[in-house]
Amino acid sequence: MYIYGRNPVKEAYLAGKTVNKLYVQKGEPDSTLSRVLKLAKEARTVISYVDQKKLDLLAEGKNHQGVVAAVTDFEYCELDDILALAKSRGEEPFLVLLDGITDPHNFGAMIRSAECFGVHGVVIPKHRSAVVNDTVVKVSSGAAEHMLIAKVTNLNDAIRYLKQQNIWVYATDFDGKPPKCANLTGAVAIVVGSEGEGIHRLTKELADDVLTIEQYGKINSLNASVALGVTLYEAAKQRHEK
Amino acid sequence: MYIYGRNPVKEAYLAGKTVNKLYVQKGEPDSTLSRVLKLAKEARTVISYVDQKKLDLLAEGKNHQGVVAAVTDFEYCELDDILALAKSRGEEPFLVLLDGITDPHNFGAMIRSAECFGVHGVVIPKHRSAVVNDTVVKVSSGAAEHMLIAKVTNLNDAIRYLKQQNIWVYATDFDGKPPKCANLTGAVAIVVGSEGEGIHRLTKELADDVLTIEQYGKINSLNASVALGVTLYEAAKQRHEK
Repeated sequence: MYIYGRNPVKEAYLAGKTVNKLYVQKGEPDSTLSRVLKLAKEARTVISYVDQKKLDLLAEGKNHQGVVAAVTDFEYCELDDILALAKSRGEEPFLVLLDGITDPHNFGAMIRSAECFGVHGVVIPKHRSAVVNDTVVKVSSGAAEHMLIAKVTNLNDAIRYLKQQNIWVYATDFDGKPPKCANLTGAVAIVVGSEGEGIHRLTKELADDVLTIEQYGKINSLNASVALGVTLYEAAKQRHEK
Repeated sequence: MYIYGRNPVKEAYLAGKTVNKLYVQKGEPDSTLSRVLKLAKEARTVISYVDQKKLDLLAEGKNHQGVVAAVTDFEYCELDDILALAKSRGEEPFLVLLDGITDPHNFGAMIRSAECFGVHGVVIPKHRSAVVNDTVVKVSSGAAEHMLIAKVTNLNDAIRYLKQQNIWVYATDFDGKPPKCANLTGAVAIVVGSEGEGIHRLTKELADDVLTIEQYGKINSLNASVALGVTLYEAAKQRHEK
């Protein structure tokens, strides 16, 4: 897998990811890349100075800002790893479950919000979901490198398992309670669906409760990643006020 | 200008926009388009049944879902129109100013959030800004059709004018106060900058105060449209609790 762009590559290093080879644009002023090059030297990465065409090819024409890192594929974790991380931090588990998010831009933005608001891990189903690829890492602004992401065979089974662990599962959908009126301070998992189809019926039924963001316009349909961002903001606020 | 996709076209009609001609895909089952066709008939729009290729051409290859509407170009308003709308509703003015948002996807998502959270109008500068085009309308999910958008020669002059009208101007940037600790209930304008460059120095200096969303991760850099969404959510919550 290739990670491109200065910030995503920097974050890959900071997250301790193994960079097999770093491709840097020939003639690029060192000053603007110095932070990345310093990290590369510390990690003893092989650096290859190449022309822009080569970088364009590796980044498949996307904006690489003069640097591309070849890394081993994203390593997904197990559901229990997420719970163990929360435990090791002495915090109540705080998870996000993505039901059928197939758009890599939405997926990346959602991982980014999850990271910024202190979520311990993101859970995606094996099928009918975007995977963590170059685009997702770039859109997440490197947040994917710091986030535990579990890929499960069946999202509903994962919800049943979380409920057994006394984690309260909220679906975000229509006709629920406003996030500010819900208690989001304890062991909590938040399930979001895709923009077009929403959450699957059975998945919503399995959830303990439903959250709906109060809106005041004529459209009343926030972008899916904005809606998740707002819900996580409200949850993070409650958790840190506690 | 062409508007494409079922929801954006529907919203164009609901907002009272004049559709000069409606292009509908031949053989498309009427049931799925019935809402749009009903609105087109009520508005006595000329309907042209064409093949998919023609629609692909009009929508420049983007996802038109079998329907494209030819409309007159987006009509920008004056800054005073936004203030007049707030007055006519008996509400304190609530504005969003976009400083250098050039990405149409971010621009569209921001208009959508503004509409959902009851903002009276969005202000953009004439230069170095995305304009309201087909992509923006589509990404905004039709919200652009319901939103007053003013294009001003100089954003800083607009800020000075709003301050003269006793509107409190908040910049969203680093090292400010959390939105929950700010009073967002009165006459308020929120200025956001682009993801790469942030708000211009002078623009930030002109603002009365700075807002920063509290974050708890390692990245601490929300997507620009998620950050605006969160700020508007907090403001809308305060305004409706008042």
